[in-house]
Amino acid sequence: MHFTVIVFASALSVITFALDNGLMRTPPMGWLAWERFRCDIDCEHDPKNCISESLFIDMADRLAEDGWRELGYVYVNIDDCWSSKERDQQGRLQADPKRFPGGIHKLARYMHDRGLKLGIYGDMGTLTCGGYPGTPLDKIEIDAQTFAEWEVDMFKYDGCWSNATEQEQGYPLMSKALNATGRPIGYSCSWPAYQGGLPPKVNYSQLGEICNLWRNYGDIDDSWDSILNIIDWFFENQEVLIPAAGPGRWNDPDMLIIGDFGLSIDQSRTQMALWAIMAAPLFMSNDLRTINSRARSILQNKMVIGINQDPMGIQGRRILKEKSGIEVFWRPLSNNASALVFFSRRNDMPYRYPTTLSKLNYTTGSYKIFDVFTDKTTMLKDSTEFVVSVNPTGVVMWYISAPAKPNHHQFYKRAHFIVRYKECFCTS
Amino acid sequence: MHFTVIVFASALSVITFALDNGLMRTPPMGWLAWERFRCDIDCEHDPKNCISESLFIDMADRLAEDGWRELGYVYVNIDDCWSSKERDQQGRLQADPKRFPGGIHKLARYMHDRGLKLGIYGDMGTLTCGGYPGTPLDKIEIDAQTFAEWEVDMFKYDGCWSNATEQEQGYPLMSKALNATGRPIGYSCSWPAYQGGLPPKVNYSQLGEICNLWRNYGDIDDSWDSILNIIDWFFENQEVLIPAAGPGRWNDPDMLIIGDFGLSIDQSRTQMALWAIMAAPLFMSNDLRTINSRARSILQNKMVIGINQDPMGIQGRRILKEKSGIEVFWRPLSNNASALVFFSRRNDMPYRYPTTLSKLNYTTGSYKIFDVFTDKTTMLKDSTEFVVSVNPTGVVMWYISAPAKPNHHQFYKRAHFIVRYKECFCTS
Repeated sequence: MHFTVIVFASALSVITFALDNGLMRTPPMGWLAWERFRCDIDCEHDPKNCISESLFIDMADRLAEDGWRELGYVYVNIDDCWSSKERDQQGRLQADPKRFPGGIHKLARYMHDRGLKLGIYGDMGTLTCGGYPGTPLDKIEIDAQTFAEWEVDMFKYDGCWSNATEQEQGYPLMSKALNATGRPIGYSCSWPAYQGGLPPKVNYSQLGEICNLWRNYGDIDDSWDSILNIIDWFFENQEVLIPAAGPGRWNDPDMLIIGDFGLSIDQSRTQMALWAIMAAPLFMSNDLRTINSRARSILQNKMVIGINQDPMGIQGRRILKEKSGIEVFWRPLSNNASALVFFSRRNDMPYRYPTTLSKLNYTTGSYKIFDVFTDKTTMLKDSTEFVVSVNPTGVVMWYISAPAKPNHHQFYKRAHFIVRYKECFCTS
Repeated sequence: MHFTVIVFASALSVITFALDNGLMRTPPMGWLAWERFRCDIDCEHDPKNCISESLFIDMADRLAEDGWRELGYVYVNIDDCWSSKERDQQGRLQADPKRFPGGIHKLARYMHDRGLKLGIYGDMGTLTCGGYPGTPLDKIEIDAQTFAEWEVDMFKYDGCWSNATEQEQGYPLMSKALNATGRPIGYSCSWPAYQGGLPPKVNYSQLGEICNLWRNYGDIDDSWDSILNIIDWFFENQEVLIPAAGPGRWNDPDMLIIGDFGLSIDQSRTQMALWAIMAAPLFMSNDLRTINSRARSILQNKMVIGINQDPMGIQGRRILKEKSGIEVFWRPLSNNASALVFFSRRNDMPYRYPTTLSKLNYTTGSYKIFDVFTDKTTMLKDSTEFVVSVNPTGVVMWYISAPAKPNHHQFYKRAHFIVRYKECFCTS
């Protein structure tokens, strides 16, 4: 009897707070084709970069062999332009036969054999954004079944060529249809991005019940301006967005563009740090075959991934905007730990930002600080004045343990620390 | 008698076309403090980065020991905030005694001992932009003499706190005063930047007669937006600017920010390539003590430096602006050679740009192509269709030799080349 009660309570809490497919209790991680490879279907002239099964096989091999999978990057996600322009004689979607000669089911097995998962893409309209067959209302059931038969693990449902009324019907209907297949399929909804991302047009309680993640805002591009634009929108609207997120249901500020062409090293660290603060899905869109070692080390940083994947799943917030262009972000983590990010919007030189932990809402105590991108560890008392040097368009990111109870040894270390600290807490 | 005539003609041509100090027959190269270190005078808390003699000594050591000097980077240039807030009892400028305890003359000797040159900074107003003593009209003669006594090699004359009338008197007067010292001192004028950079307010013929280089436009910042803004202005006004430039007299689009915080690798290559096309002075403003190897290899690329330093000194131009966001730039070089740059303004993915050399105004013939950033060499016939793959915000840069006269061997190589070429001429 006790057993039954516990199960019931647990099931209830899941139903109340998130889609009941049990998936994505932490933000999903993996790779997604769109930003880097778009709708390149010219396999004749551009065979290494066109949307084809060999592109996804290449990326799967890299994820499995280059240390990505072990860190959690397990989804390999197809985006637009994968299908034939025509459905088959049974009315089912089918992959483009030239570019995916083995078909999607075989590709899914390739992923599963390597401990990876396959994601696929569809659209609520009659056509996808790229002009391929869509999945309008009357095709939802058959397409959900097709994806399940193919053993697909995730589905992104885009919104081109559909209106608000259709979306209001279609996005919940697809959720039901995917659940009805019996196969756990992570469900990414572009719905809110097509409705401005804010209430009253967007109902985040409902989204949390039908989708595992959702795109709130426009597409990311390969530029720092695009990152800034996304950061601005998400943190200006944080009071709306933070309560929407939690285990199994995530705001999605779009792909990681680290390793592409438009970001400096500092800007890459900034994207990684703030996506971790936001508890954002981490889908890289880059070329894992040629990625350079600096970009890889940022994407494979275990501490920032650990912060992103914190099991409490509480989305963080901006707590300070200084006139100097310095902003401070904070996210509460399990075990009374937390993450802090100091970010500089400046374009001149590293800025020396003086503050104390107590100014950042840390209560009395002594804290162990891990610098995420330099691996340095120090102790810091709440009242100690310190200076962080933040690079232009860069960040300093800290993982902060629960406050320690002071003892003699720690007092000694702290005093030692203060001296070093006053010099400079540098990142570069 | 013949000898006299030749000397006279030569002197005449110098007077007609450029400042007659004989300096900077190719664009000057070196390091300049401003963009990276600004007016940081806090040597107590930031001793490694404050404007002080040790900063310039550090950079001189790096230039001399890390291969920069041999490539032409010989100027070590002080910018604003170097001086004491007061002139000395004789009315002369003096360095800040705490930050430059050895004084400027000793610093100049330090440079000369290492085969380097020292540049210094002043301003036409009563105060510099940073609030230090300026060099208004009545101080021009004494300051020019002081700089010469200190054995300074270059002088940048800024324009804060001065009006158009003062500038019209002061910039030529300083030119005369520097010449009158008998010491060759390269002369950088900020004058046109304070007058909008364009005729009729700016007289480029006059500038070429009194200055070795001049800032036409606003200050650069550590951002890609700043680079784009500068590129736009200089190439939109190229018909005015190109005739102004030549040996001894250069348009200055401001410092190289490669190795700082705001540019990706591709964007760094773009700045280097387009500054070479513009025959721009190459003053790096970065931290040579910590610069990473990728940035260094771009700044130390011999072929792009060679293009920048071409002895003809003809400034290049934009020859094509495509709707796709691809732009093509061209600069004529000595020995009937030339440089081409393909630049992409896109923010999505590498763009495959199809063209032929004849479409880019190359006449009949077969050309040897050196890819500046990949070191690949190929032959290309004027009529051969090829595709260059240009990264977002990146460039492909070619050095193109004079057309070769075809022979059997070359015909063979060319045919071989075409096949490879049609695949893709990739940079990454």
